[in-house]
Amino acid sequence: MENRKPLSIIKIGGNIIDDASELSQFLSDFSKIQGHKILVHGGGKSATRTAKSIGLIPQMIDGRRITDANMLDVVVMVYAGQINKNIVAQLQANDTNAIGFSGADGNLIQSEKRNHPIIDYGFVGDVQKVNTPLLQTLISSGIVPVFCAITHDKKGQLLNTNADTIASELAIALSEVFEVTLNYCFEKPGVLYDAKDDSSVIEKMNQELYAKLKSEKAIHSGMIPKLDNCFNSLSKGVQKIKIGHHKMLKNTNAIHTSIEL
Amino acid sequence: MENRKPLSIIKIGGNIIDDASELSQFLSDFSKIQGHKILVHGGGKSATRTAKSIGLIPQMIDGRRITDANMLDVVVMVYAGQINKNIVAQLQANDTNAIGFSGADGNLIQSEKRNHPIIDYGFVGDVQKVNTPLLQTLISSGIVPVFCAITHDKKGQLLNTNADTIASELAIALSEVFEVTLNYCFEKPGVLYDAKDDSSVIEKMNQELYAKLKSEKAIHSGMIPKLDNCFNSLSKGVQKIKIGHHKMLKNTNAIHTSIEL
Repeated sequence: MENRKPLSIIKIGGNIIDDASELSQFLSDFSKIQGHKILVHGGGKSATRTAKSIGLIPQMIDGRRITDANMLDVVVMVYAGQINKNIVAQLQANDTNAIGFSGADGNLIQSEKRNHPIIDYGFVGDVQKVNTPLLQTLISSGIVPVFCAITHDKKGQLLNTNADTIASELAIALSEVFEVTLNYCFEKPGVLYDAKDDSSVIEKMNQELYAKLKSEKAIHSGMIPKLDNCFNSLSKGVQKIKIGHHKMLKNTNAIHTSIEL
Repeated sequence: MENRKPLSIIKIGGNIIDDASELSQFLSDFSKIQGHKILVHGGGKSATRTAKSIGLIPQMIDGRRITDANMLDVVVMVYAGQINKNIVAQLQANDTNAIGFSGADGNLIQSEKRNHPIIDYGFVGDVQKVNTPLLQTLISSGIVPVFCAITHDKKGQLLNTNADTIASELAIALSEVFEVTLNYCFEKPGVLYDAKDDSSVIEKMNQELYAKLKSEKAIHSGMIPKLDNCFNSLSKGVQKIKIGHHKMLKNTNAIHTSIEL
């Protein structure tokens, strides 16, 4: 067998980012994770707040933001500027040698503007290509990449891209050269049988159970693209996927959902 | 003598950034410059516009922005987000493998919050240390760094930093390992004898002439820190400094000011 080094990819969402003390605790825990690692962050609420303060009205369809030119400007400012650079500065304070990236930087994540037959999503990108060799070089030299959810089309256009998708596309691409564990952190302890009951964590989720829960409508809208991403990533070579509260990173015995094919 | 490779450091200001077609032309010209290079950008007017749109009133003392917590948030969003990522995306479209950086990324530029006896500049940083080894590795592997004027204190705090100073501190640090030419691009063809007459370019400026023109008040406020930076950089090992319109980068015969000790 090959002797690939382990790589942890960790995706955090708006709930951690919007809570300064929670974020600070998470970044301290993240800094203590041994070995190669990548952080991917979203940041939905903060962008919405900034958009409102300059008079824009955010539009969503099926949980996806419609990104017109003004909204793209806001998400680039908030995700790639405010959130990304504050996370990097805090990681540096924790002696983690982080570099913040959008997909445009080093052409690390190239995407294509979404061309949907019915809905015009605006400046939204679907990932086409990850620059694996450059990422591998950076990671192997001890850099901890911190990705915001902005990509580009290599023709000069920045594009808003789903952060879960970025995490899974990075995981798929890098599984060629690393043994990748993908961790989706959110406010819940895992995927729940009953959304109202935090003690109802599904500890092992596979495709059969997923199909069953979808048909029973026990799994609802926001979780569907997340789990689709997971099964897609596993089928393309990602070693292991975990979904849960970020405390699962610090305490490996903490309850969470493991996804398997 | 050592066999150091040439490195061009080019600083552009708000006048180019605020004019989309001028910026696009500049980035195309910049992409054609042979050899190793770094771009440093300011972006004052754009930050002021964004600050006003969310109801902040920008304050300036002696041409330097007073940066309170809200204004820091705006400059981080605009400089490190909006401007930096748009420049990087355009350079990538020109097949230049740019990566955008703040000083926090890779701990590339560490600074100290300014402690002034009279004026509280707020979250403004004075450069203390450049991470020369990491920058040298990146540049030597073909990356073109694009720096915005944001640094950090390595304790988690981002700091607003003068872009001219960033350019000169990078030039000084990198002159240990490269033969550095520092180019300050602005809207004029060079340093002028008569600020109202664009044909009055001083083609060669040295310390003696600078002292004379300062005493005659022919050189005014904004130009003084710029020239102070230049003489400081030359005294610390930078090979060559040019001040002029960015067309001097494309046409080496174009009139400009050369600074020498």
